[in-house]
Amino acid sequence: MKKLINNVPNVVREQLEGLAMAHPELDVHFDPDFVCRKGIPKGKVALVSGGGSGHEPLHSGFVGLGMLDGACPGEIFTSPTPDQIYECAKAVDQGAGVLFIVKNYTGDVLNFETAAEFCFAEGMKVQCIVIDDDVSVAGGSGTAGRRGVGTTVCAEKIVGAAAEAGYSFEQCAALCRKVNQHGRSMGLALTSCTVPAAGTPTFMLPEDQVEIGIGIHGEPGVARVPMKHADELVDTLMEHIVDDPLYVRTVRELNEKTGEWDEVELISHPFESGDRFIALINGMGGTPVSELYGVYRKFALSCKKRNFNVVRSRVGTYISCLDMQGFSITLLRADDEMIKLWDARAVTSSFCSPLCDTSI
Amino acid sequence: MKKLINNVPNVVREQLEGLAMAHPELDVHFDPDFVCRKGIPKGKVALVSGGGSGHEPLHSGFVGLGMLDGACPGEIFTSPTPDQIYECAKAVDQGAGVLFIVKNYTGDVLNFETAAEFCFAEGMKVQCIVIDDDVSVAGGSGTAGRRGVGTTVCAEKIVGAAAEAGYSFEQCAALCRKVNQHGRSMGLALTSCTVPAAGTPTFMLPEDQVEIGIGIHGEPGVARVPMKHADELVDTLMEHIVDDPLYVRTVRELNEKTGEWDEVELISHPFESGDRFIALINGMGGTPVSELYGVYRKFALSCKKRNFNVVRSRVGTYISCLDMQGFSITLLRADDEMIKLWDARAVTSSFCSPLCDTSI
Repeated sequence: MKKLINNVPNVVREQLEGLAMAHPELDVHFDPDFVCRKGIPKGKVALVSGGGSGHEPLHSGFVGLGMLDGACPGEIFTSPTPDQIYECAKAVDQGAGVLFIVKNYTGDVLNFETAAEFCFAEGMKVQCIVIDDDVSVAGGSGTAGRRGVGTTVCAEKIVGAAAEAGYSFEQCAALCRKVNQHGRSMGLALTSCTVPAAGTPTFMLPEDQVEIGIGIHGEPGVARVPMKHADELVDTLMEHIVDDPLYVRTVRELNEKTGEWDEVELISHPFESGDRFIALINGMGGTPVSELYGVYRKFALSCKKRNFNVVRSRVGTYISCLDMQGFSITLLRADDEMIKLWDARAVTSSFCSPLCDTSI
Repeated sequence: MKKLINNVPNVVREQLEGLAMAHPELDVHFDPDFVCRKGIPKGKVALVSGGGSGHEPLHSGFVGLGMLDGACPGEIFTSPTPDQIYECAKAVDQGAGVLFIVKNYTGDVLNFETAAEFCFAEGMKVQCIVIDDDVSVAGGSGTAGRRGVGTTVCAEKIVGAAAEAGYSFEQCAALCRKVNQHGRSMGLALTSCTVPAAGTPTFMLPEDQVEIGIGIHGEPGVARVPMKHADELVDTLMEHIVDDPLYVRTVRELNEKTGEWDEVELISHPFESGDRFIALINGMGGTPVSELYGVYRKFALSCKKRNFNVVRSRVGTYISCLDMQGFSITLLRADDEMIKLWDARAVTSSFCSPLCDTSI
């Protein structure tokens, strides 16, 4: 294992210390660890996300004006603890409620829900919205469901802009749910990642093979196929995303009267010709941006062929898997509201939208 | 070789097509290939850079408001041609002159100088400013001198802001020279890069070795040492940068009266306790941003120990070497003017400064 680290047990802590030193505009807490925006406007709905480390810049890189108010980094690929999330929520709460954006992994959901219960018990307004957009997982009842991947970045941007613009707590929660319903993602890996504590690659992938449908922790995908031209790899991901049928899942939401978890059915409809999209072509951590632009070319041609109208896009590394080489595609079917919020001003260390007008 | 590409001969072209599709705000030309900002203000000094591809986001990623007006990508690790640079210069010229920012490599310097002669012959105001900031190369007379690396990014940002703010041609050229005089960089590699046309790593580096002082094309460094903790690697680069003595080189500048190349002596003084700095902790293409923050931590401690006052910094991948894993440190001794220009508004695909006030 060749990494720019010191002793393995200190990796996450030292990287967080580096973040704090590089960004004095952030309020970085230790024990428990969380990252807060400074100067959150009073009365603004606060947005908190988090999850295992190893996916940077997600989430700490998106703390700031127009995106997250707080981020809770766990150990590598390990959920943050309930008390960590709870302390972060208390630190960012401005009296208008705290919305948790949670990627759908068993540990993350459990710990964010537990933290929500702590917050509720203290009289705070709180809700968990789960993102589950990875079409490479069949999901369905009786399983942990689909993984949360690239749509999380879109949710943090769009709901972040909404909160900044004065949306109410209920409006922010509804919008976040809507973003999740309209987002679909899929990724692939050319190489494994290496978790520092393990010291060896998470899985073995021969030089002539690609893992299609990889998760952001190196979870196995839907198929291992021979290495192909980038265009063919893009086609494969696009086919899975476009052919993904109507998807129904049951999500849990905190009932603000009873404090119990209500079950709500959430439906995602397939994409159709003529739809408008915000797109993310995302590197997995070890992928040069030049290759991502090569991918974008075929992605754009593929969308054009399907009469998918890509109105906004970003190319870069937003949700990674340590040093993995590979990429993911996220398509978010967007309406006028989402596009306006996507364009809105955002100032964070890893996502910047320079629009000056903050009245959207 | 496992890369997200199609046929090797089309790699650069297809990536440029992808850039054009992803960024309709850019004016991308083909045959010859160059990338222009749209809507350059009349009478503004135009800034053009370029060089071999494989260093993305440099330079095309920095075309836009407050940075470059034009970028000329050559084939991978191959200088752009004089006619390519000349056509780009003509396309961006707004009557106030075109300044070429040139990394110090023999081919780049030759071709930018030839392009400058073409422009001069047509009556355009033009100048070449060479960046040569890599302290891992001894340089001196009779050699090609020091390579141009991270300070190039600083020059594009700072001189770009100056041009945007209405600096004259001569002021922009003088400022660019000043940035180069005060910038020092050094990098290291954990892994080689792989040039698509070669198909195999440029050099072999054992799993337990690090190449110190690597160039951005995989040129050998000053030493190959055993793999160490990140802190020790940072110390090594910092020692080279800080111990770098007074550096004198002769640069060539176009005499606007005679059209001949005048030789000018340019001196760089060592850094001293109490100096203020803009810093770049730069990934080489395959380096996760999380590891760069671990590097930043030790870098910041090292600066503090030396009473170096780092007033601004960026952590990310700005000047890369294809898929190489590794990092470089750039320290730019900055005065009030440089800091103000560093902060100024910039809107490009890969470097954003969201300040709204453009009157600096």
